[in-house]
Amino acid sequence: MERKEISQAVVKRLPRYYRYLGELMESGVERISSNELSERMKVTASQIRQDLNNFGGFGQQGYGYNVKYLYTEIAKILGIDQNHNMIIIGAGNLGQAIANYANFEKRGFVVKGLFDVNPRLEGVTVRGIEIRNIDCMPEFIKEHNIEIAALTIPKAKAIEMAEQAVACGVKAIWNFAHTDLNLSPEIIVENVHLSESLMRISYNIAKMERNNK
Amino acid sequence: MERKEISQAVVKRLPRYYRYLGELMESGVERISSNELSERMKVTASQIRQDLNNFGGFGQQGYGYNVKYLYTEIAKILGIDQNHNMIIIGAGNLGQAIANYANFEKRGFVVKGLFDVNPRLEGVTVRGIEIRNIDCMPEFIKEHNIEIAALTIPKAKAIEMAEQAVACGVKAIWNFAHTDLNLSPEIIVENVHLSESLMRISYNIAKMERNNK
Repeated sequence: MERKEISQAVVKRLPRYYRYLGELMESGVERISSNELSERMKVTASQIRQDLNNFGGFGQQGYGYNVKYLYTEIAKILGIDQNHNMIIIGAGNLGQAIANYANFEKRGFVVKGLFDVNPRLEGVTVRGIEIRNIDCMPEFIKEHNIEIAALTIPKAKAIEMAEQAVACGVKAIWNFAHTDLNLSPEIIVENVHLSESLMRISYNIAKMERNNK
Repeated sequence: MERKEISQAVVKRLPRYYRYLGELMESGVERISSNELSERMKVTASQIRQDLNNFGGFGQQGYGYNVKYLYTEIAKILGIDQNHNMIIIGAGNLGQAIANYANFEKRGFVVKGLFDVNPRLEGVTVRGIEIRNIDCMPEFIKEHNIEIAALTIPKAKAIEMAEQAVACGVKAIWNFAHTDLNLSPEIIVENVHLSESLMRISYNIAKMERNNK
């Protein structure tokens, strides 16, 4: 079946559906109506029906959606029905936190290696994954078919490291460094700018205080 | 001066302006034209003029914008012209990574305390901040005028901890737990769902592969 492209707005909502459906499966729920799902997710039932119809998730009147079927379909669309090999560049606290988080692996994101410039970290293992010297990275990427590089280093070296990883064949950068990477457009860049996230909080606090005056 | 509310779309772009203006200041640049800024930020000059006009950042023809003025104005709008006291609930790798990141403090987000259930972590310090038992949290929030709680614990306890922090007066939750909190609407919740961020990457990899077939 030719799959028509799903709108970005729907794609953005899919991980949340996926999470709720996963929780339903864990609690043994096999079918759910759009109304029940609506109540749990605090989204209107008509929005749910519209979103899920996009990929053949047609609920049956009085019978509801097949939870497992939807879960599997969404996994396919999100590309998490297959494994993606990942490395982490920068084995500081944040890099180690990501390496330690076993749930990523359950969703198919397999951390194959951790790299750092700090020689004192070399040979240390995090959840069984060895920290290697950054000089070993290019060869490692090619040998292990790495698709994703998480960039958890300060901004000074971020662009250089990203370019190096891309030159070795990495398709996507998960960028935690506080800088824009400006890579070529066919490279996928997903930014996690934590300080921007904090600023949205302070903006909302300031706004709330203005409104309360 | 009465400040009219700025649209959410503009607000979302402000942290990025703030970052670029900060870098310009660091390199000693005092004035910049919308064209130069446009080239650096890869945004059209007309978008920049429109955005900055929202808060009186009027560039002068042939003279450009006053970098420091804009920087200060944006800081005010974003509420980072004043300090915000923060605690971190969960002193695992991620909690410690956040506590360690001194740059948040430069922007006014001051980590006052770290809390964990693990008794072995008690008394350990991260960047001079002591890890305390979670039972001390309620009193600590009240005593230290804590506005923001970062939630870096697994989802099982996340909702309970968030509710407890809110009951003690916290205004905003910076939620890293993989769950929705469903707090009362006047509480600010900023979600950082890392696995959703990863799924956007795998979605884009899968899409790229479909297109290349």
